[in-house]
Amino acid sequence: MTDEPTGLWLIGARGSVATTAISGLLALRAGLTPPTGCVTERPEFAGVPLPGWADLVVGGHDVVDTPLVKRAEQLADSGVLPHRLLGAITDRLHAADAEVRPGYHPVTHRGSQAEAAGRLAADITGFRERHGLARVVVVNVSSTEPPVPATPEHDDLAALEEALADPTRAVLPPSSVAAYAALTAGCPFVDFTPSTGIALPALDELARRERLPYAGRDGKTGETLLRTVLAPMFTARALRVRSWAGTNLLGGGDGATLEDPAHADSKLESKARGLAALLGDGVTAPLHIDNVPDLGEQKTAWDHVSFEGFLGARMSLQLTWTGLDSSLAAPLVLDLARLVAAAHAAGQVGALGALAFFFKDPLGSDEHRFAEQARELYRWAGELT
Amino acid sequence: MTDEPTGLWLIGARGSVATTAISGLLALRAGLTPPTGCVTERPEFAGVPLPGWADLVVGGHDVVDTPLVKRAEQLADSGVLPHRLLGAITDRLHAADAEVRPGYHPVTHRGSQAEAAGRLAADITGFRERHGLARVVVVNVSSTEPPVPATPEHDDLAALEEALADPTRAVLPPSSVAAYAALTAGCPFVDFTPSTGIALPALDELARRERLPYAGRDGKTGETLLRTVLAPMFTARALRVRSWAGTNLLGGGDGATLEDPAHADSKLESKARGLAALLGDGVTAPLHIDNVPDLGEQKTAWDHVSFEGFLGARMSLQLTWTGLDSSLAAPLVLDLARLVAAAHAAGQVGALGALAFFFKDPLGSDEHRFAEQARELYRWAGELT
Amino acid sequence: MTDEPTGLWLIGARGSVATTAISGLLALRAGLTPPTGCVTERPEFAGVPLPGWADLVVGGHDVVDTPLVKRAEQLADSGVLPHRLLGAITDRLHAADAEVRPGYHPVTHRGSQAEAAGRLAADITGFRERHGLARVVVVNVSSTEPPVPATPEHDDLAALEEALADPTRAVLPPSSVAAYAALTAGCPFVDFTPSTGIALPALDELARRERLPYAGRDGKTGETLLRTVLAPMFTARALRVRSWAGTNLLGGGDGATLEDPAHADSKLESKARGLAALLGDGVTAPLHIDNVPDLGEQKTAWDHVSFEGFLGARMSLQLTWTGLDSSLAAPLVLDLARLVAAAHAAGQVGALGALAFFFKDPLGSDEHRFAEQARELYRWAGELT
Amino acid sequence: MTDEPTGLWLIGARGSVATTAISGLLALRAGLTPPTGCVTERPEFAGVPLPGWADLVVGGHDVVDTPLVKRAEQLADSGVLPHRLLGAITDRLHAADAEVRPGYHPVTHRGSQAEAAGRLAADITGFRERHGLARVVVVNVSSTEPPVPATPEHDDLAALEEALADPTRAVLPPSSVAAYAALTAGCPFVDFTPSTGIALPALDELARRERLPYAGRDGKTGETLLRTVLAPMFTARALRVRSWAGTNLLGGGDGATLEDPAHADSKLESKARGLAALLGDGVTAPLHIDNVPDLGEQKTAWDHVSFEGFLGARMSLQLTWTGLDSSLAAPLVLDLARLVAAAHAAGQVGALGALAFFFKDPLGSDEHRFAEQARELYRWAGELT
Repeated sequence: MTDEPTGLWLIGARGSVATTAISGLLALRAGLTPPTGCVTERPEFAGVPLPGWADLVVGGHDVVDTPLVKRAEQLADSGVLPHRLLGAITDRLHAADAEVRPGYHPVTHRGSQAEAAGRLAADITGFRERHGLARVVVVNVSSTEPPVPATPEHDDLAALEEALADPTRAVLPPSSVAAYAALTAGCPFVDFTPSTGIALPALDELARRERLPYAGRDGKTGETLLRTVLAPMFTARALRVRSWAGTNLLGGGDGATLEDPAHADSKLESKARGLAALLGDGVTAPLHIDNVPDLGEQKTAWDHVSFEGFLGARMSLQLTWTGLDSSLAAPLVLDLARLVAAAHAAGQVGALGALAFFFKDPLGSDEHRFAEQARELYRWAGELT
Repeated sequence: MTDEPTGLWLIGARGSVATTAISGLLALRAGLTPPTGCVTERPEFAGVPLPGWADLVVGGHDVVDTPLVKRAEQLADSGVLPHRLLGAITDRLHAADAEVRPGYHPVTHRGSQAEAAGRLAADITGFRERHGLARVVVVNVSSTEPPVPATPEHDDLAALEEALADPTRAVLPPSSVAAYAALTAGCPFVDFTPSTGIALPALDELARRERLPYAGRDGKTGETLLRTVLAPMFTARALRVRSWAGTNLLGGGDGATLEDPAHADSKLESKARGLAALLGDGVTAPLHIDNVPDLGEQKTAWDHVSFEGFLGARMSLQLTWTGLDSSLAAPLVLDLARLVAAAHAAGQVGALGALAFFFKDPLGSDEHRFAEQARELYRWAGELT
Repeated sequence: MTDEPTGLWLIGARGSVATTAISGLLALRAGLTPPTGCVTERPEFAGVPLPGWADLVVGGHDVVDTPLVKRAEQLADSGVLPHRLLGAITDRLHAADAEVRPGYHPVTHRGSQAEAAGRLAADITGFRERHGLARVVVVNVSSTEPPVPATPEHDDLAALEEALADPTRAVLPPSSVAAYAALTAGCPFVDFTPSTGIALPALDELARRERLPYAGRDGKTGETLLRTVLAPMFTARALRVRSWAGTNLLGGGDGATLEDPAHADSKLESKARGLAALLGDGVTAPLHIDNVPDLGEQKTAWDHVSFEGFLGARMSLQLTWTGLDSSLAAPLVLDLARLVAAAHAAGQVGALGALAFFFKDPLGSDEHRFAEQARELYRWAGELT
Repeated sequence: MTDEPTGLWLIGARGSVATTAISGLLALRAGLTPPTGCVTERPEFAGVPLPGWADLVVGGHDVVDTPLVKRAEQLADSGVLPHRLLGAITDRLHAADAEVRPGYHPVTHRGSQAEAAGRLAADITGFRERHGLARVVVVNVSSTEPPVPATPEHDDLAALEEALADPTRAVLPPSSVAAYAALTAGCPFVDFTPSTGIALPALDELARRERLPYAGRDGKTGETLLRTVLAPMFTARALRVRSWAGTNLLGGGDGATLEDPAHADSKLESKARGLAALLGDGVTAPLHIDNVPDLGEQKTAWDHVSFEGFLGARMSLQLTWTGLDSSLAAPLVLDLARLVAAAHAAGQVGALGALAFFFKDPLGSDEHRFAEQARELYRWAGELT
């Protein structure tokens, strides 16, 4: 399948991560940049049958209208994209923009969620046919939603579909409407955010019925990445972590979204689950996300780890991570599109636990240790044919 | 072999690391402390036939006279040992002190190095017989020596033994005299420092001739530990590390020793080899060790990592590690004594590359990635019987 | 007045700060320690008529029973007091303990607040008479209270005294009952905490009526100290601070108290007022206080300052302060006792704004810049005679 | 004198600092940027008779040919200048470039140093006449030179001038040739680097003879700025600083220059003098400057301060400063041009100690405390008329 044309359909296609992924894909295709940050370009993936950069076609949904070109200019001012790249890709950014359709917005939508999903699925199907694509991978990179209360319909596909048909109800959050639409369009789905998305039993049931693979959730790009690398070190050295405090400063749209405690909860829950999985429950782990608009696309995280060694000796480790979140996330989005396309081509179905390497809160896996995740990823990729 | 009486003979038996290891062993044996920091108490070693805490008998060589009890008091003031422990172990510290013999000092020694080694070997043999020990593991935890210039005798055992017999020559540094003595006494040897020690072809030849295992070198306890954990993360994520700068502030005897650039060179060379092995040669990596006496036993390391992501985005990671070096090293010394004793009982010979997990500059292994080292250690230990 | 016997009456006399202050005073008096951390021992105070260490007699109120000696042992384990000091001062700690009386506790108290205050005042008066003291300075170092809602009685002394006499009402928080009692006993009062204490118009009225000086509030010992030093630097250099984010990790009793958001609010409000006074209102300044019990007496604060320079260039400063709060606060408590005693002897009345140097939220002053506060303090002290 | 046309002649006119200063001046004059970082725009200087932005005319010497426009583009890629500014100032940058003359280079120069200085002075004089300038302030912002060995001619003007006339000798480093030329052209001189420059008794003699003021040296823009702010805090609080370790990572041309230990010595000596002046001699103060090319214009400094409080308690402060050195330096260069022009207009002569605020190693002043320097600067400026 290496050179089959493959679609990458981005939910939130005009956001920072999507714009960076699209710009980067255009730059890679034109040979204007090395594939730094792209895991699937590492030697471990040398023989894996993945679609090439030239095989990927991009489209997506978004609820905002800002053109990709304008968004790319803003990202260049923030240090995410090099200024000199803009000129070279402007035309192709406009072309990609032409493949972006209005997303589903619960406030403005009229009619049932089933109708909304039907329209979204039709957008994707039309894109697939228009470009003669072997398959389309749908990746959610839209803003983080607040956690949603569980309802019985989330656990049962038949009940869910009945509720979706009811124009007076909104049983799914937008990320899950998008996942439902992708699956009904016959497309694999990737949740790159901590939103609910595909992480509902009823949607897992649908994916299995449709023989589709999916992966998620919440891309692991900064503080959590470090934690899943460092926590196993303390464990392997029999050092007792007593507290692991974290503060995240971020600007950009993400900062504004997560300033709302309801939205931040999704992210904080996802992070906390990971730390407990790695170190057990006895660790004091306060965690904050602060909106600091002047930081723009930059995310700065400070972690303070207090640990105990031999004979109760008290020691500490501090970390300050200064990253550009979109720069870290975008190449992983491209990696996931390639890997999930290959999984689909290979007939894999359901949650792809072997992709835990990419996620804070991996679906289909309990493994949070980074080195073990990497090993599992390489093993899995090596078996794709 | 689990309950055979086993000797632990420490070169530098009255230094900080040795005093902490001895005090801790006494506390563990008396059930006064949990085995925090002891890797061999982790579940991965559950069925491995290792000597128990109660089976270990301690002796050693040192060139200084400060009693262990006095050294332990100083370490309690520095936060390495709990004050309340001292009273409980004073008697047994005195007993351990009685098994410490004068070490070899090149300045005060009269006669050939062969004679010196003969005397050291006789001390160890006497200790083994006096206590009816199945075996004695010799561990070097003395002060770091400067690198020594290579001579032809270092590569050939016969030539070396001839040179050792010549009273006008001092062909080996003290750490290597200690290693030679250990091997001639039939004892496995562990190099916990970056000194030359056993890392000479002629001594490897001797170890093989005597059918003895050995391990080294330079215990991995702080900054380098972090580097071998974090560098593979950057590699696995295809992020390009551009620079990795490090500053180490340390007091104590180690700070004073390493203040001398000649001595620091051993340590710096050992660290630099590791980083290049992990990330290749293109990384700017300035590294400093500063003597800051007021820090006492504390070691503070700051690392600044500058890396490049997708589309050349510039990002950074800073680390500050505040550790008590003796607290980190001492349990590993006990682990190594147990593991190397088990290797000896199992008939293993030569450099134990599977113990790379413990060392900055592993003998018998090219593997610097911490997670891979841990896996190899567990595999190897699982095969000991 | 230099050698008049002077009382230091501590509200919260068995807490960490008080125990450290008392132990330190005993050590200073016995010549067992240099006066590190004592501002009034600096050359700028050479000719100022302050009571000497030997002139200070200590007593206080507390609602807990833990003996000072036991508290001092805990502080020694935390690194606040040297272990070797304990033996030398045990007897005198017992003597000080004998001068600690039960504090006012709103839950267990029966009767009006006026009766409670009367009993407290009588304790202080008895202490003054028993020891023949020229004066007693009352210093509040008890746990931080939540902010209290304003009531009309807080603004008018007559109304306040009427309400205090009503056994069905509790119009004042405990810190203010203590301040009221001190003033009615004819004693100057110092608020070392962010609790309400003396900071009510009605109590200012009382102080003026009684011709008493007072000072406060919220001792400036760590993160805020740094802010009042560094913020003026940015201003003087015309650099535009865009955000100043802070995270405070603390254990000990203070950590537990401040874990309760209601209590933390007092502290956070006090800190926020200071930053706005220094840099204006346009600075994003998220601030967190986290309870991390394993840190014990240690307080670790991380500040991240993002600022803009020439032509909009983006730069940053990070700070990590690792302090022992009691060690920082205790000598200032002694300093304040001496300085406020001298102010009382000199007939000063009302809020001593010249002591802003010591406080996060200075009463009687709008000056937050550290260098200006120091200058004003020296000027003021120089005029005391 | 407020609106007299005034020249700013930059030694090293095509370097990063100069290019940023020139670009910024053009942006200020055109109202394209607020005067962030410009001290002389603060309210404290409201009534001081300084030349306005529109009154300043720029020229200079340099030994390199890279056009200012090209250098400005590089600085925009490094985040020092905003990309969007470049278009607006290109024409005026070309005009400024036309006023840059070849600098003195000891390797390529033929003839005596007197001849070289004569040519340099003539360049400046021609510039002054061509533009009808009331005066020209010469500011050295060229690369740091190594320290030069003292010779007797440095102490005596007559001897110096004799040596300068000898074509076989090179008695002065280039920075001092530039200072000599400036003075002989009747121009005040500012040393913004740690090079020798004007800091020789013979040149002080010349300045006094010519009735010229001068200022220096080594602009205080980062780590040292923080030290002169923070060290007085420890002193005022009677806290005992035990060690103050520093590591500076820098790229750009400055990094490459200072990689050479001979050049770094000038900088390290200048920094060390400052710390000792602030805290006395008993502080362990290791200091490193590392060339880390990938950091570009960014300078990252880490300081670790270990200090002792009450009863010997051990505490620490860490700082990480991430600055763009040219962004910090450039507005100070403009400030100094204005202030020194005003001093010249007011008839001041010799080292302007009141400008210590700007320098790591102030000439004419022993004051290193930032707050005191600011006060003295304001006082002095207030007296200019």
